Amino acid sequence: MFPMKLIVQKFGGTSVADTSALKIVAERIIDRKKQGYEVVVVPSAMGSSTDELIDLANELSAKPTPREMDMLLSAGERITMSLLSMHLNSLGHSSFSLTGSQAGIITTSRHGKAEIEEISGERVREGIERGDIVIVAGFQGFNRDTREITTLGRGGSDATAVALAAALGAEKCEIFTDVEGVFTADPRIIDSAKLIDEITYDEMLEMSSSGAGVLMARSVEFGRRYNVPIIVKSTFANNKGTIVKEKIMEEAIVSGVTHNDKEVKFTLFGVPDQPGIAGTVFGSLSEIGTNVDMIVQNVSKESITDISFTAPSEQQKDVEDTLKNISKKLDAKGYDVDENIARISIIGAGMKSESGVASKMFKTLGDNKINISMISTSPIRVSCVISSSDIERALNVLHEEFITK
Amino acid sequence: MFPMKLIVQKFGGTSVADTSALKIVAERIIDRKKQGYEVVVVPSAMGSSTDELIDLANELSAKPTPREMDMLLSAGERITMSLLSMHLNSLGHSSFSLTGSQAGIITTSRHGKAEIEEISGERVREGIERGDIVIVAGFQGFNRDTREITTLGRGGSDATAVALAAALGAEKCEIFTDVEGVFTADPRIIDSAKLIDEITYDEMLEMSSSGAGVLMARSVEFGRRYNVPIIVKSTFANNKGTIVKEKIMEEAIVSGVTHNDKEVKFTLFGVPDQPGIAGTVFGSLSEIGTNVDMIVQNVSKESITDISFTAPSEQQKDVEDTLKNISKKLDAKGYDVDENIARISIIGAGMKSESGVASKMFKTLGDNKINISMISTSPIRVSCVISSSDIERALNVLHEEFITK
Repeated sequence: MFPMKLIVQKFGGTSVADTSALKIVAERIIDRKKQGYEVVVVPSAMGSSTDELIDLANELSAKPTPREMDMLLSAGERITMSLLSMHLNSLGHSSFSLTGSQAGIITTSRHGKAEIEEISGERVREGIERGDIVIVAGFQGFNRDTREITTLGRGGSDATAVALAAALGAEKCEIFTDVEGVFTADPRIIDSAKLIDEITYDEMLEMSSSGAGVLMARSVEFGRRYNVPIIVKSTFANNKGTIVKEKIMEEAIVSGVTHNDKEVKFTLFGVPDQPGIAGTVFGSLSEIGTNVDMIVQNVSKESITDISFTAPSEQQKDVEDTLKNISKKLDAKGYDVDENIARISIIGAGMKSESGVASKMFKTLGDNKINISMISTSPIRVSCVISSSDIERALNVLHEEFITK
Repeated sequence: MFPMKLIVQKFGGTSVADTSALKIVAERIIDRKKQGYEVVVVPSAMGSSTDELIDLANELSAKPTPREMDMLLSAGERITMSLLSMHLNSLGHSSFSLTGSQAGIITTSRHGKAEIEEISGERVREGIERGDIVIVAGFQGFNRDTREITTLGRGGSDATAVALAAALGAEKCEIFTDVEGVFTADPRIIDSAKLIDEITYDEMLEMSSSGAGVLMARSVEFGRRYNVPIIVKSTFANNKGTIVKEKIMEEAIVSGVTHNDKEVKFTLFGVPDQPGIAGTVFGSLSEIGTNVDMIVQNVSKESITDISFTAPSEQQKDVEDTLKNISKKLDAKGYDVDENIARISIIGAGMKSESGVASKMFKTLGDNKINISMISTSPIRVSCVISSSDIERALNVLHEEFITK
């Protein structure tokens, strides 16, 4: 789209926590400018400012109006972007900032969870053509029909950055964060965890949705759909980071071990084993917006079965309310909740062509007396639900077996 | 314009300092709603939040870009208005908030000091027609040509409120603040200062421009031009306040005594007494945006004269720089600055038809050994520049003579 080299850089909450952090962010931007790139920057709100605004809202309203919540929260990026822009100007690098609507980030109308539909980006392009550093507010957009300001929900700023990179035809999108990149396991738990240099979109999607919090699945989806290479790296270490792209040089059999201990396991007992039952259960859960993850249905005995599934802990209350109703409606024997579970997953594009990865995982856990209560698989992932007290040990033995060895 | 009774209410910084204050603000709004009014609300940014944002900007830039400064500061009202709106909704009063541009507040393009040119107010009217409480951000607007967000500078939120009241044909505009209204003298200094029930626009203009900080002249100008009654009152005391309007019931000879100790007196010595000299001096000062106030030119001796004038203390540095140049250019003997001055004024529409008010003021000051160094008058005001060390005593004796007696 542009003859020049163009890069989009996104800086998250801790990277823009205060004015000293913003000065380092400016250095990262100017580094790229000096390398001959045109730069578009997507900042988040400063540090904990979004949480502080949410606290204020909760003090004033038990159930804040979603439209007003978006109006409120969109103030956050406005502060970061204008401060960053005036700082760049003061350093002699011409820059200006644009709100989501000024940048033409057109979204669906759903407040708090809007999705990007289109990026017109007229004023962004004008700025790039003038050689300006254009700062675009992350996390926010505009709906044409309602004429309202929207926010994109969790991972929204990453999504803004990758979508902008796609719309502008940028060479790549750099996501700056407080960690050095994507690791083979959580480095806070596994000392020997290694930084992954390259990873495919598919693997990254599996990593994101099974516990690696560094990049949200929605931005990886954008990257994959429009083939935008995404680089995850630290603002403060200035290392190479991890590049997420379509084809990578060397495909490891297993790229990483992830874990997620923020889920709860539900079991619906004694459900009649008839067609349409699962549809009823998960249809009702979907209506209340439950992110159901793993699902296991036991082998039927005397035309009666048990259905287990996991869902995020934060949705526990809502799910229980729904299960209470369904349980009655289906004449089931009851339901049970297990909060002491965790999910451990191994991910790797190489396991598609390599057999025995799953069985080696089960054996390793078994050898270490770690009981598996649920299993789910994809072509490039195997996940096991285990007791949350076993999670650290499981991470260690699996990382040792599949990565370090 | 509307068949219904419509009121515009403006709430300043201390009235919206925190969530407890916002709850009281909501009570004031609902009071009016219950009286059958349709209500449009104009809030400022919360407490000291504007100053905090300015501090951040100064940490990052010696001379912040005016456009970005407006982007930054406009975040302040966005926070107040959305919080207030969600609180009203939670109390069962349907409400929504609009930014300056959403409300159609069209301004000139001058960042930081924009002036309101027009209020289209389409979405405000739609809201009123639905019976909603419409919250409109104060202090901010939008320029059509540049497509940029602007801010209105000092007193901008008051101006927004009165201009909105004019554009919507509101019955009146209530300006809620942290004082009970307009007083006959500063009540922090004069114990016997009394609240003024009614005052004309002209008197209020003279009060505002000679030191009574409660209402900025620009909003009084709006009120006068469109004949919108303005009520200044306290958010927290819920008293009657002061009403500013065209014709008042009982016209006092002297309505109030104001003082201003934030000015500096400059004197240019030994200037040739020729036509065009004053034009040169005050033309140059006007170019640098000096708010020159009182001007006195001494009686000429041997074709040489002295020119004295006062200007705000904050402009002292700029004025001195200009005087240095002018002094050379005009071959004057030099210039002098006196920082230890203050201005005291008596204001009253009644003095138009009453002679001897000025001479009584001079006599009162003289009887009390207070020396007058400059005098200026208007049909409804007499101002004297005196030594700043005399100001409290002068206030007391003049308030006693003209108000209490």
